[in-house]
Amino acid sequence: MSVIPEDFIKKTTTLSEAVTGSFYNSRKIHVDGSRPDIRVPMREISQEATAASFGAEENPPIPVYDTSGPFTDPAQKIDLLKGMPDLRSGWIQERGDSEQLDGPSSEYGRVRQNDPALAHLRFEHIHAPRRAKPGKNVTQMHYARQGIITPEMEFVAIRENCRLQELRDDPRYAKLLRQHQGEPFGARIPDEITPEFVRDEVAGGRAIIPANINHPELEPMIIGRNFRVKINTNIGNSAITSSIQEEVEKMAWSARWGGDTLMDLSTGENIHETREWILRNAPMPIGTVPIYQALEKVNGKAEELSWEIMRDTLIEQAEQGVDYFTIHAGVLLRYVPLTAERVTGIVSRGGSILAKWCLAHHQENFLYTHFEEICEIMKAYDVAFSLGDGLRPGCLADANDAAQFGELETLGELTRIAWEHDVQVMIEGPGHVPMQMIKENMDKELRDCFEAPFYTLGPLVTDISPGYDHFSSGIGAAQIGWYGTAMLCYVTPKEHLGLPNKEDVREGIITYKVAAHAADLAKGFPGAQLQDNAMSKARFEFRWSDQFALSLDPEKAMAFHDETLPHQAHKVAHFCSMCGPHFCSMKITQDVREYARSQGVGEDQALQQGMQEKAVEFKQQGGEIYKEL
Amino acid sequence: MSVIPEDFIKKTTTLSEAVTGSFYNSRKIHVDGSRPDIRVPMREISQEATAASFGAEENPPIPVYDTSGPFTDPAQKIDLLKGMPDLRSGWIQERGDSEQLDGPSSEYGRVRQNDPALAHLRFEHIHAPRRAKPGKNVTQMHYARQGIITPEMEFVAIRENCRLQELRDDPRYAKLLRQHQGEPFGARIPDEITPEFVRDEVAGGRAIIPANINHPELEPMIIGRNFRVKINTNIGNSAITSSIQEEVEKMAWSARWGGDTLMDLSTGENIHETREWILRNAPMPIGTVPIYQALEKVNGKAEELSWEIMRDTLIEQAEQGVDYFTIHAGVLLRYVPLTAERVTGIVSRGGSILAKWCLAHHQENFLYTHFEEICEIMKAYDVAFSLGDGLRPGCLADANDAAQFGELETLGELTRIAWEHDVQVMIEGPGHVPMQMIKENMDKELRDCFEAPFYTLGPLVTDISPGYDHFSSGIGAAQIGWYGTAMLCYVTPKEHLGLPNKEDVREGIITYKVAAHAADLAKGFPGAQLQDNAMSKARFEFRWSDQFALSLDPEKAMAFHDETLPHQAHKVAHFCSMCGPHFCSMKITQDVREYARSQGVGEDQALQQGMQEKAVEFKQQGGEIYKEL
Repeated sequence: MSVIPEDFIKKTTTLSEAVTGSFYNSRKIHVDGSRPDIRVPMREISQEATAASFGAEENPPIPVYDTSGPFTDPAQKIDLLKGMPDLRSGWIQERGDSEQLDGPSSEYGRVRQNDPALAHLRFEHIHAPRRAKPGKNVTQMHYARQGIITPEMEFVAIRENCRLQELRDDPRYAKLLRQHQGEPFGARIPDEITPEFVRDEVAGGRAIIPANINHPELEPMIIGRNFRVKINTNIGNSAITSSIQEEVEKMAWSARWGGDTLMDLSTGENIHETREWILRNAPMPIGTVPIYQALEKVNGKAEELSWEIMRDTLIEQAEQGVDYFTIHAGVLLRYVPLTAERVTGIVSRGGSILAKWCLAHHQENFLYTHFEEICEIMKAYDVAFSLGDGLRPGCLADANDAAQFGELETLGELTRIAWEHDVQVMIEGPGHVPMQMIKENMDKELRDCFEAPFYTLGPLVTDISPGYDHFSSGIGAAQIGWYGTAMLCYVTPKEHLGLPNKEDVREGIITYKVAAHAADLAKGFPGAQLQDNAMSKARFEFRWSDQFALSLDPEKAMAFHDETLPHQAHKVAHFCSMCGPHFCSMKITQDVREYARSQGVGEDQALQQGMQEKAVEFKQQGGEIYKEL
Repeated sequence: MSVIPEDFIKKTTTLSEAVTGSFYNSRKIHVDGSRPDIRVPMREISQEATAASFGAEENPPIPVYDTSGPFTDPAQKIDLLKGMPDLRSGWIQERGDSEQLDGPSSEYGRVRQNDPALAHLRFEHIHAPRRAKPGKNVTQMHYARQGIITPEMEFVAIRENCRLQELRDDPRYAKLLRQHQGEPFGARIPDEITPEFVRDEVAGGRAIIPANINHPELEPMIIGRNFRVKINTNIGNSAITSSIQEEVEKMAWSARWGGDTLMDLSTGENIHETREWILRNAPMPIGTVPIYQALEKVNGKAEELSWEIMRDTLIEQAEQGVDYFTIHAGVLLRYVPLTAERVTGIVSRGGSILAKWCLAHHQENFLYTHFEEICEIMKAYDVAFSLGDGLRPGCLADANDAAQFGELETLGELTRIAWEHDVQVMIEGPGHVPMQMIKENMDKELRDCFEAPFYTLGPLVTDISPGYDHFSSGIGAAQIGWYGTAMLCYVTPKEHLGLPNKEDVREGIITYKVAAHAADLAKGFPGAQLQDNAMSKARFEFRWSDQFALSLDPEKAMAFHDETLPHQAHKVAHFCSMCGPHFCSMKITQDVREYARSQGVGEDQALQQGMQEKAVEFKQQGGEIYKEL
């Protein structure tokens, strides 16, 4: 059972330095948009100058996409009791198509609000929820289809570009911006992400901006295959461990290391209150699987679920500000028997709940039959669909089978319906798939779901890697991200074994940042190679501090380096710990480089002539490998 | 400086239980060949029976490829002073084409043997080396080309098959052996690996069996793209840390976790003696980069290297029993200036040493000009070439450039020469390559090097992952393994940062086992999915012990599971720790499965008819998710 400390609220008004501390040699910057209230946060990594022995030059700062939110902004005072700054209320209100309600319109929301026994758990500054005015539609897709560029769209355009246009005009970045040609597999990524491009992608359903009007704290981000590949993280108390405090801290921790979105998969007690705390402090979109909470309301008896309970739960969560809902509306009655001969049957929790309900009632999935009503709720708050893959394979043996692909086709049908309501949609994908069968998943999703963004869990490319499933799923994630998946759901080392702790979460996130970044590089996303090139130059020039700062996880890089070379002196050493001072290939290369350059590279004749002479000179100079600083 | 404990020999005659302990629920088995001295070790994982609630059946034992050597064989008494059992001396002697020398024929080998100051370091039971009789050639390739099937070839055929033919005749394995079709990209993997197939692959140069006649302790293995993908690990003392004891322990540790071959990259003091200890206790092929030791002999001054010093070093190491040499003979003078404009120049230690030598002398690389003489040495002991990629890219920016590909073409030319001498060859590959450029490397290698086995380091698919480079290189490794690379050189989490400790080595190995296994699955290697299917079935049936035993790293899987559910009772629990007892999708699925089966799967009419009736029955039964054990 979950344990909530009595004095939780008083004790945890702020977060630890481990979560809020600035990144090594980095600062928070903001890029201004077309109006004063569009200020897009980024991280800027400063670099040291190149040492004289390597040619003495300044190295420009490197701007990077920043998911860490106000937590790492020294200008912000973190107070979990008050929640994060309100970024979007002005934007939402000026559209004039929504109104503030008197209070929650869900039955459950009202009960929780009025229960005095929950006072000590409740977030203090709850605003009454907003909802679309009657007949209005407040989705980003609806605006896009009207030709409107919202502040959210402009925000994500600036965010995706990450100052690339400015850098292109700055000669200091010329070499650093060199990049290999990508293989985008049909993705159409422009050289510059403009607000117009964002609008067109959202209007066409190829991208979504999950941004509930009741989550004004959100820093908008976009999910689509013509943008940077994103990663989702999961948190959630279970019946066995966790408390509210742990969950809020994990959310901030996830933001710090690179989680672009976060799903709250809580299933225990007080999940309504936990969710409120998370949302009011979350700079990233928050997703949920509402059927988990609906099941709690019927004491875990799947067959007692009903549309009415689900509907109330959807409204309850939409009014708290959840940005996307996983809805398993594609688990159709006729698909269920297709899973019977599987090795691992149905492994999705949501999928198995609905399969059980379908069998118990011999009726079609009520999420499918009530899908248009769900759309009505979604568009009143701008909650995006994450159409769940309830029949995803739980092992290699079950990959790409009739049940999985049948459901995927139904998700395509539902996508069309949602789009008729201008409701944003992404499609969830597997799971466990061997490498040679991954591309078929991506191609089928693009075809059957009309290029709606794909959001996959891994896939794991083998079943025999417990303890290393973050990695075996990361292999599949990098590939499917390259092929076109827009967002990768992270997996931690504890997958299949237990609940992740903080270090597991960090390990899972960075593993997935590697996969997502590798996919961006492979697709040829503009500017993706900048950080790699800066790192490589720093590596060649033995600028250790810059190598740490340019790492996806500077703290781990530094800690690992310190294990072998603990002294500060070594951080400026012109050798690395693997080979020691007298045997360093980088150092040798530098000699080669200076020498080859003196011959005039590419001038073959001069090279032929000067070589013998220079050889003598080189030896006369001593030909020493190691020079003192 | 390396520290050798005075009492090293007396204290470390054996290894710790952590290295030699049996794997969880596993035993060492031996499969007999055509003669009594061919006994191929494997590991057999026993499985528990399926519980009554899941259908009560026996689950057959799962045989797996075993790299752990005699260390994990309880029938063997480990005594590091005596070395490992001598498996191959009989095979080598009966061929009658080699002779035992009076002592080392290298000058350096004699000096070391006769230095009384080294007595306390020296391995006690050194045999005098063997060498081919004058005019004879003792390579596996030479025998293969004569049409001879050596015991080594039969050994590896049995080892690769891993009892698959027997299992195919046993109905208990019918379902477990189901496997998806692979995409082998031109590899031609037969349904059964026969000794004849092994011979033909070795004769054609498409595979190598590294097996020096002075390393009779070796359990033969094969490297080729029509066989299981292998992984190499590295050890090596450096000027800054390590001792002999550490290195020998790391070798055994590497064998335990799955290292197929091991490179000793030592560069410090006493590397001759360290190597002797390693070889006499090594069940896997050992590779070296002889130029490292040659450089030590000229006090680190690359320009003072000479063919004579190199030649003596090659003989010294060949007579100790090194199975493959990395030889950077493709670093040609004309390629060196091509690296000058690179972001990270030359990052291979061997490559930079030779580049420096070439420039200092304005002469062609002496390994290139003396290549036929090197072949003469190789064939006198059966040392295989690992033709080094001295000009591999050290960062994404430098991937697939003129220097790298120029060298690769030269390696193809050298492959032809080596094959004229019947000397076995594999080709080393990069390095750092973004995903979309990996396949070009593989295709070019196959074309330019005539299908000689490719042996790659990663490649890393991004530069910004220090601390996670085992993973970012593992992504590239899985892909290039799928495309056709025969052996993957592992990378640890400490890559680019420091020297790996024991846990880093284990993490790196398992990461690479995942990549190699994923590649086997993707290529469709026969039987590759057996262990995955057994794992998936165990997972579905909540056989926790079997899940641990079938994991690549049972100990970590168990430790991770115990963190969340520490009590023994939970290891037989019919739920997993992620969801708790009342909310388990696997459990729900089981209900669905039993139910759907009762309808007669695939019999649509019956399904239609019985559904409503069964729905009532299901609810009457209580429809309970969780049943007590």
